[in-house]
Amino acid sequence: MQLGLVGLGKMGANMRTRIKAAGHEVIGYDPRPEVSDVASLAELVERLEAPRVVWLMVPHGEITDQNVEALAGLLSPGDVVIDGGNSRFTDDQPHADLLAQGGIGYLDCGVSGGVWGLENGYALMVGGSDEDVAKVMPIFDALRPAGPRENGFVHVGPVGAGHYAKMVHNGIEYGLMQAYAEGYELLQAEPLIEDVTGTLKAWTEGTVVRSWLLDLLVRALEEDPGLAQISDYTTDSGEGRWTVEEGVRHAVPLHVISAALFARFSSRQESSPALKAVSALRNQFGGHAMVDQQGRSVGETSTHDK
Amino acid sequence: MQLGLVGLGKMGANMRTRIKAAGHEVIGYDPRPEVSDVASLAELVERLEAPRVVWLMVPHGEITDQNVEALAGLLSPGDVVIDGGNSRFTDDQPHADLLAQGGIGYLDCGVSGGVWGLENGYALMVGGSDEDVAKVMPIFDALRPAGPRENGFVHVGPVGAGHYAKMVHNGIEYGLMQAYAEGYELLQAEPLIEDVTGTLKAWTEGTVVRSWLLDLLVRALEEDPGLAQISDYTTDSGEGRWTVEEGVRHAVPLHVISAALFARFSSRQESSPALKAVSALRNQFGGHAMVDQQGRSVGETSTHDK
Amino acid sequence: MQLGLVGLGKMGANMRTRIKAAGHEVIGYDPRPEVSDVASLAELVERLEAPRVVWLMVPHGEITDQNVEALAGLLSPGDVVIDGGNSRFTDDQPHADLLAQGGIGYLDCGVSGGVWGLENGYALMVGGSDEDVAKVMPIFDALRPAGPRENGFVHVGPVGAGHYAKMVHNGIEYGLMQAYAEGYELLQAEPLIEDVTGTLKAWTEGTVVRSWLLDLLVRALEEDPGLAQISDYTTDSGEGRWTVEEGVRHAVPLHVISAALFARFSSRQESSPALKAVSALRNQFGGHAMVDQQGRSVGETSTHDK
Amino acid sequence: MQLGLVGLGKMGANMRTRIKAAGHEVIGYDPRPEVSDVASLAELVERLEAPRVVWLMVPHGEITDQNVEALAGLLSPGDVVIDGGNSRFTDDQPHADLLAQGGIGYLDCGVSGGVWGLENGYALMVGGSDEDVAKVMPIFDALRPAGPRENGFVHVGPVGAGHYAKMVHNGIEYGLMQAYAEGYELLQAEPLIEDVTGTLKAWTEGTVVRSWLLDLLVRALEEDPGLAQISDYTTDSGEGRWTVEEGVRHAVPLHVISAALFARFSSRQESSPALKAVSALRNQFGGHAMVDQQGRSVGETSTHDK
Repeated sequence: MQLGLVGLGKMGANMRTRIKAAGHEVIGYDPRPEVSDVASLAELVERLEAPRVVWLMVPHGEITDQNVEALAGLLSPGDVVIDGGNSRFTDDQPHADLLAQGGIGYLDCGVSGGVWGLENGYALMVGGSDEDVAKVMPIFDALRPAGPRENGFVHVGPVGAGHYAKMVHNGIEYGLMQAYAEGYELLQAEPLIEDVTGTLKAWTEGTVVRSWLLDLLVRALEEDPGLAQISDYTTDSGEGRWTVEEGVRHAVPLHVISAALFARFSSRQESSPALKAVSALRNQFGGHAMVDQQGRSVGETSTHDK
Repeated sequence: MQLGLVGLGKMGANMRTRIKAAGHEVIGYDPRPEVSDVASLAELVERLEAPRVVWLMVPHGEITDQNVEALAGLLSPGDVVIDGGNSRFTDDQPHADLLAQGGIGYLDCGVSGGVWGLENGYALMVGGSDEDVAKVMPIFDALRPAGPRENGFVHVGPVGAGHYAKMVHNGIEYGLMQAYAEGYELLQAEPLIEDVTGTLKAWTEGTVVRSWLLDLLVRALEEDPGLAQISDYTTDSGEGRWTVEEGVRHAVPLHVISAALFARFSSRQESSPALKAVSALRNQFGGHAMVDQQGRSVGETSTHDK
Repeated sequence: MQLGLVGLGKMGANMRTRIKAAGHEVIGYDPRPEVSDVASLAELVERLEAPRVVWLMVPHGEITDQNVEALAGLLSPGDVVIDGGNSRFTDDQPHADLLAQGGIGYLDCGVSGGVWGLENGYALMVGGSDEDVAKVMPIFDALRPAGPRENGFVHVGPVGAGHYAKMVHNGIEYGLMQAYAEGYELLQAEPLIEDVTGTLKAWTEGTVVRSWLLDLLVRALEEDPGLAQISDYTTDSGEGRWTVEEGVRHAVPLHVISAALFARFSSRQESSPALKAVSALRNQFGGHAMVDQQGRSVGETSTHDK
Repeated sequence: MQLGLVGLGKMGANMRTRIKAAGHEVIGYDPRPEVSDVASLAELVERLEAPRVVWLMVPHGEITDQNVEALAGLLSPGDVVIDGGNSRFTDDQPHADLLAQGGIGYLDCGVSGGVWGLENGYALMVGGSDEDVAKVMPIFDALRPAGPRENGFVHVGPVGAGHYAKMVHNGIEYGLMQAYAEGYELLQAEPLIEDVTGTLKAWTEGTVVRSWLLDLLVRALEEDPGLAQISDYTTDSGEGRWTVEEGVRHAVPLHVISAALFARFSSRQESSPALKAVSALRNQFGGHAMVDQQGRSVGETSTHDK
């Protein structure tokens, strides 16, 4: 079948390759002319035969909003738009409502797999109507991993459900990564452990903790022993934050996921205002005289934490 | 080669099966006569030809202590004892020292794999001397998963390092399980998500969060939809606790692993003394009059959290 | 001066008493005729001489919205409305904008003190213009604790700042209460501690942890030894949640405040879906055979946490 | 009465001053001759009339051990030793046992108050026998704050109970400080808050969060606006760590106290090995190509957190 694909960044370009490899026709649009098949979104829509399917793979927020609005003006009844980006699930119903005014269908689709999806397939979590899902199923089948459809594809529920599932997926991912990371830090802090990378590598088969993330961690350590080339500055996309917000909304305790998110926040601080306050408090009750004191008096240690 | 195996519980019995399947001779001892090959530890030692290799697969603490002490009196110079149980790493050096007095070698070996190890192989993390490791390598090769040795086996460092690595492995495991569990709880709290199990199943291929634990979670949900037959009462073995203690000792922040451990503690409380104290405090500053009040007054809601 | 006070619940009624005691005239309105001085909001406005000052002390959200809208239609240029309830700070600017269309001023005022405020005074955190603050200052001075104005009153910033400060105040309060509560739980778990209440009471003077909350905790324990009459079910008002949301928005790590909030969430669960998932996972890799096993085999303990 | 006081650091010297002010005789010993009243511990013991009371105010661990051992050889039946330092509670029973061999009594006494204790009095938590407590009560009364004895003094239980209570006190203190610190950080991150110090100061009277620690935080901010002179590097004494260890031992969830401890650990790291691992993982699944890419492609943002 034919697919219009908007956004040919790294993810979009790889997805195009995989969909084409499955025998479908992909017409891609990107504002960068050197990678785009068409000159404009209007031309993209013209080039597609009705009923059209247009997949958005662009940054969430304003850019997705603009594309949905533009497509609402260009597409026809019976066409379907899929938002495959990392939009907040609360954006989906407004987008669906806008498109529905023109009889245009809408699906939200969480896409997982990163740069490895080209080869392994992308896991897909879809929200929307059965009818719209059926229209796009050949594309979903092209993108998802080989093997049984249910391992790599799910129609989660109505509009919004796909992005919700993807959001939770990423929240879990934060927790998993932080769990491995804490274990890694403890291993490298303990002198008994003479081979940290080897220990993690030994865990990649047969253990309870084996996973794709663990394989990647071993790969990273083999490429860069001790992670000497890596900064600890760790950004976060919106989805970890949204997951914590949803935990708050649903009164679900998310100790681990929030701790993982906060650890990233801390990694980006030059210094912590909170710990400055703690340090200032300790000075207050420990006494400023400490600084002036000559030599180390017995009892000096106990001037803290009174 | 010949192996003496002490402890034929579920783990020990499965390991015996796997070692025998690799062509080795296993003489097993267990205090329960109906499963034991010999009548006593002394008979076990007699039946083995020197240099002997005796593998302990018994509960950590007193029972392991007793077995090490007994073997110290029964074995000869050049023999080797392996503690494959979940001992605290601080038990290893004393055990090694005791055995060394009689010229007996000692290895500590963390074993991961659970009931699935029989089929998949067990991941092994070993602490001790190169010489002792070499003596036992055929048994390690029989137990570990097929494939390259380094994926499933590691000589981590000196005595104690094997159990240390296994301890960290289990600490990570706590964190991973809690991360999936929090995500699961959020999915099942959100009405948009019409198919929780299907969502998790779709993640088993192609996603960043795919892992063996995720496969097991899907399996559990397919066997028992909604986990209706499962209590939330969750015990912990020593290793999660020791991991947190080690984080404290090495000043390594373990936000995620400790949160996972504490969640298990909470799951075992009928009611939380701490939250009783919080509730009592709220009553104190919200005022006892609340209870006597007739009807719902405007402003009543704001009597909490002043 | 004259004050119109809307909402005569426990907080509103106490505040009226304190303001009157300072020599001001208070005309109160409440939908419950038996406590109200006037029959309607319209009558309240009529009874006040311009420039009028109307203080809202009603539940946040819809009820506050309705009152602000009604007052926008009833008041005149130069009048001022104060929202003294626990509104989310994001509600303030819309309320201010609506009132500004009629030339009416707006202040948001966080009020702390609970049932004790009548006697001790209420701490006040105010957002809005200098001009509006000046108009209401005599009322603020009546409500705040005796002593220097800056200990109990602050003009925090523009509209919204007062409720923001109150929100953070309550977030801190969650953390403080949970810190005492955890310490209390540990004290009562340790057999060496023969006098938990006496220990807390000894901390009320001279220690680093002395505070009003600690005084209240001792009071609660003296009234109800062991907190036997108290349930651990602990609700939360919006402000703890909003604080965590703001931490997420500003990328401020709030490990302690979020943990305190999540502990309240947990206290309200009959059983934890997350821990059911953890328990189910442990069963999966520990093996169902566990349940069928007769007697306690050596090695049985180690069937968990592989 | 007479008191022998060993350790004349800041704490010891201040305590001497307060005890003397109450009319008691204090003979102090310190290894620094310029501050010591006697040349040796032996001379100290000689100078005291039996039954002697000797108070240790020295660093916990080896130095306390050495002093207890020395006193065990110097004192006589009926004498009493008090360890007023921050010893781990597990050190107390061994010290008591050693002294008991010579008929010498032993009390452990947690002392809170810091540099402010000289003026305000010190809160005291004591473990040991009623008989020994009675012997030292005049000194306890001199040290504790004025007012009712139970507000500032408690006989918690048998040997060890005093230090246990002090340990929990300090664990709570960590949690309280971190709660204020997180709130402070959030206030200073929000542009609406134009007066952070003023906001905190307004909380010092009338609010639920008022406390001595809050007073100190305001004092610190008034002395050093924005805490510009303060590093966020925050050390910890043993007691926060021991509290977490006790939570682990008693299966008491200590989310808040452990988070506060871990925040201090993080404050002392140049960079976080754990977050390096997280960052490395993100690079692995986000793809190295990112770095080489020219210009900002649509979809680029979504290359993280797949």
